[in-house]
Amino acid sequence: MNFCSHCGNPLASRIPPGDSRPRYICDSCGTIHYQNPRVVTGCLVTHEDKVLLAQRAIAPRHGFWTLPAGFLENGETAAAGAARETLEEACAAVDIIELYTMFSLPHINQIYCFFRAEMANPDFSAGSESLDVKLLGEHEIPWDQLAFPVVTDTLKFYFADRQKGVFTPRTLDIIRPLAKPTR
Amino acid sequence: MNFCSHCGNPLASRIPPGDSRPRYICDSCGTIHYQNPRVVTGCLVTHEDKVLLAQRAIAPRHGFWTLPAGFLENGETAAAGAARETLEEACAAVDIIELYTMFSLPHINQIYCFFRAEMANPDFSAGSESLDVKLLGEHEIPWDQLAFPVVTDTLKFYFADRQKGVFTPRTLDIIRPLAKPTR
Repeated sequence: MNFCSHCGNPLASRIPPGDSRPRYICDSCGTIHYQNPRVVTGCLVTHEDKVLLAQRAIAPRHGFWTLPAGFLENGETAAAGAARETLEEACAAVDIIELYTMFSLPHINQIYCFFRAEMANPDFSAGSESLDVKLLGEHEIPWDQLAFPVVTDTLKFYFADRQKGVFTPRTLDIIRPLAKPTR
Repeated sequence: MNFCSHCGNPLASRIPPGDSRPRYICDSCGTIHYQNPRVVTGCLVTHEDKVLLAQRAIAPRHGFWTLPAGFLENGETAAAGAARETLEEACAAVDIIELYTMFSLPHINQIYCFFRAEMANPDFSAGSESLDVKLLGEHEIPWDQLAFPVVTDTLKFYFADRQKGVFTPRTLDIIRPLAKPTR
């Protein structure tokens, strides 16, 4: 961040009065440009005893398998964003059940939410960001080809909870030392 | 958003190839400037049978009572942010129990998270963003002077759940027609 998005003048970085962190500040128009984590929202979609996985056609983790998910947009609820991403990536209409996992990933400034959901009808196919989409049983999950730890963890919780017959929402932190690009 | 924060040139607004929403695009350096919801994180802090409320010294809702909460910062977990805000606004150290309520507020592009927490020790006082801080019993809550619907709802859920002896995490949407400033 080099220039003020409001007036176009160069930005300085310093701690504003009453704050405790350095912010990008425009000394021309006075705007303080805060930077905050983004929310990724998605679905663990089931149909009968199978789970819907999409093979990524985009970076990062091209070719690896994921639960449909993406950045929450302005003006939408977390559940609506999860359903939209599932429709975009897996061409599947879903009925949301409940928030199932919420992960904090402070090293990449993300909050990741997965909702449990059921397919509203049996139709699905690969969207433009997916190479392939499959409904897979527990013993068909490609555990060594999953795209992200949040996907692996959410699937493990799901199969363990299904065994017990009770689905318990979970809030977790994934702590890593290094920052990585988020887009 | 008028100018590119990367190179300082004027921005255009249009739908990028492969996207479905208008974005701010810099035709000089090619940067697409996404805008996404922010996360507010806070605590419903209890000590014995009382709840910690802070009276706001800042806009919006100056003078009204709230649960300690604020914008999640880059590099922190949702729980750590909730504890930090409680320390800043109510000078209270807390032990986080669990995520209790998560609200989507699409009209102001926010996701609001409240964690249940207990005071780590009995000390508290007003931080710089608070006029006053109090530990209040259920029948002392100033229901008509609460700052935000998410605070009212979270407190109502809490007292109902406490009566039942089981605390059930909840995900909710608050739908309003009009956009309001978020800072």
